[in-house]
Amino acid sequence: MTFKPKFPDFKTKVKESFDRQKFMELIRARLIDVKPGFCEIHVPYDKSLTQQHGFFHAGIISTVADNASGYASFSLMDENSSVLTVEFKLNLMSPGDGELLIGRSNVLKHGKTLTVCKAEVYAVKNGEEKLCAVSQATLIELKDKSDSAATSTPT
Amino acid sequence: MTFKPKFPDFKTKVKESFDRQKFMELIRARLIDVKPGFCEIHVPYDKSLTQQHGFFHAGIISTVADNASGYASFSLMDENSSVLTVEFKLNLMSPGDGELLIGRSNVLKHGKTLTVCKAEVYAVKNGEEKLCAVSQATLIELKDKSDSAATSTPT
Amino acid sequence: MTFKPKFPDFKTKVKESFDRQKFMELIRARLIDVKPGFCEIHVPYDKSLTQQHGFFHAGIISTVADNASGYASFSLMDENSSVLTVEFKLNLMSPGDGELLIGRSNVLKHGKTLTVCKAEVYAVKNGEEKLCAVSQATLIELKDKSDSAATSTPT
Amino acid sequence: MTFKPKFPDFKTKVKESFDRQKFMELIRARLIDVKPGFCEIHVPYDKSLTQQHGFFHAGIISTVADNASGYASFSLMDENSSVLTVEFKLNLMSPGDGELLIGRSNVLKHGKTLTVCKAEVYAVKNGEEKLCAVSQATLIELKDKSDSAATSTPT
Repeated sequence: MTFKPKFPDFKTKVKESFDRQKFMELIRARLIDVKPGFCEIHVPYDKSLTQQHGFFHAGIISTVADNASGYASFSLMDENSSVLTVEFKLNLMSPGDGELLIGRSNVLKHGKTLTVCKAEVYAVKNGEEKLCAVSQATLIELKDKSDSAATSTPT
Repeated sequence: MTFKPKFPDFKTKVKESFDRQKFMELIRARLIDVKPGFCEIHVPYDKSLTQQHGFFHAGIISTVADNASGYASFSLMDENSSVLTVEFKLNLMSPGDGELLIGRSNVLKHGKTLTVCKAEVYAVKNGEEKLCAVSQATLIELKDKSDSAATSTPT
Repeated sequence: MTFKPKFPDFKTKVKESFDRQKFMELIRARLIDVKPGFCEIHVPYDKSLTQQHGFFHAGIISTVADNASGYASFSLMDENSSVLTVEFKLNLMSPGDGELLIGRSNVLKHGKTLTVCKAEVYAVKNGEEKLCAVSQATLIELKDKSDSAATSTPT
Repeated sequence: MTFKPKFPDFKTKVKESFDRQKFMELIRARLIDVKPGFCEIHVPYDKSLTQQHGFFHAGIISTVADNASGYASFSLMDENSSVLTVEFKLNLMSPGDGELLIGRSNVLKHGKTLTVCKAEVYAVKNGEEKLCAVSQATLIELKDKSDSAATSTPT
């Protein structure tokens, strides 16, 4: 499927939103690629990201899948829109065992309000990618709602 | 529903597994309660856990839901079993806006191989709980597989 | 949770929509109860509704869950709105073995655009209800879109 | 991905199981293709299969997705095994508007106990396929359990 972005500078908008997510900094996630309807995110292995067997925690795997889908969707939205995840479903298929986690998401349907994405998460071990999770997600476009609005969260 | 644990010391087993998850340490998650078929986990707000609007990141919300379901299931499994998440589905219903995130999960069905759980995640703001996400998950019991086995992950 | 309907005659609107679904007629489904944010649907056993082992087919079980959630949501929507299922996730927990299938759905969150529901499906055997499936669903309200509009489907 | 069936006659086993599902007969579903890890099912339009707007009912769409995944999985299982759907999640992306519904499912991961599948459902209108739903499912293999065992359902 080929998608057309709504304005030329969509990559900058995605990059700036990603950079505002402090959680991405904490887990050292990197935004590797953004194309219309596509996003790729990497997270290098670190012991602080593991579950009880020393593999990437399922929470990190779902973070990568969710965020890749969020930004794949966001790449197609209006310049003045914000994006929120409505829901997602993730199947864990093999352990997150490796030196790097790669999340890639593609938009399947971009509607006026809702966008549907799929994502694959790969664990890279000794340079080889192995599919470790797949997800399916629904995102919503919030029109005329700045992605960088001040909020009322505790400081 | 009332469930019977398979051995008296199930709480210790859950606690030890939780403590082996380095990711729980990173996000300062606390195991608050474990009963047969139930688990509650708390994560206090920290700026490092936020998305672009300053709220708890969806990745943290799903981590809390997933882990609560994992340990609710684990509480009912054999002493020598390990647990893995097969899949889960999460609906985000309101922003993770507050000073604390609470995840509570209950087992709906505990089978020989698979266990089905639901979880609710609440954001606590000024002391008031607000439902921010619900999930439904499938977990698998791996018999005679130690939860603390050495693994081959990169160091 | 208590919900307020938007207009007094919401039950009639639900009933009329249900009656327009020819598929409900085919499987002899009956709309048993509608309250604000709640719906119950029954399907009596018939050999024509079975899978290979003679139990209710998973397709019937998901139909009952989906429709109960659709009409639980619809009961809270505007008089001139239509409803569509965005997505749902269903866990099958025991065989659909019995003389009757009961689907009950409750709204968990009713938003301006999206509504989140859970549903339980029970198989009744010798008069006893057994939980056979649980689901979680997202519905969308289409404002100013008649539920009985003529369509362009083949005849 | 390429999969190897466990025994030569896997197509016959799938066909016979499909033919035992009375519900497939009721909705006039046809098993069109079975390959190792793949299954395609068709359902021609009939007014008795519709929702309130005259389109294919979401219950039919999920039946087609679920059954295609069930038999895609079954094609890879042991000769003496039976298959059950653990869970599935379906996103409805456009109305089931057309003269034919096509469900195609591919196995993503075939494990010893669990198999993960994706499925796409297309509505064919005036000969053109349009993606109307996507799903992600988990199936379980029941070893040494005949798919045609007599059961205790009401008659």
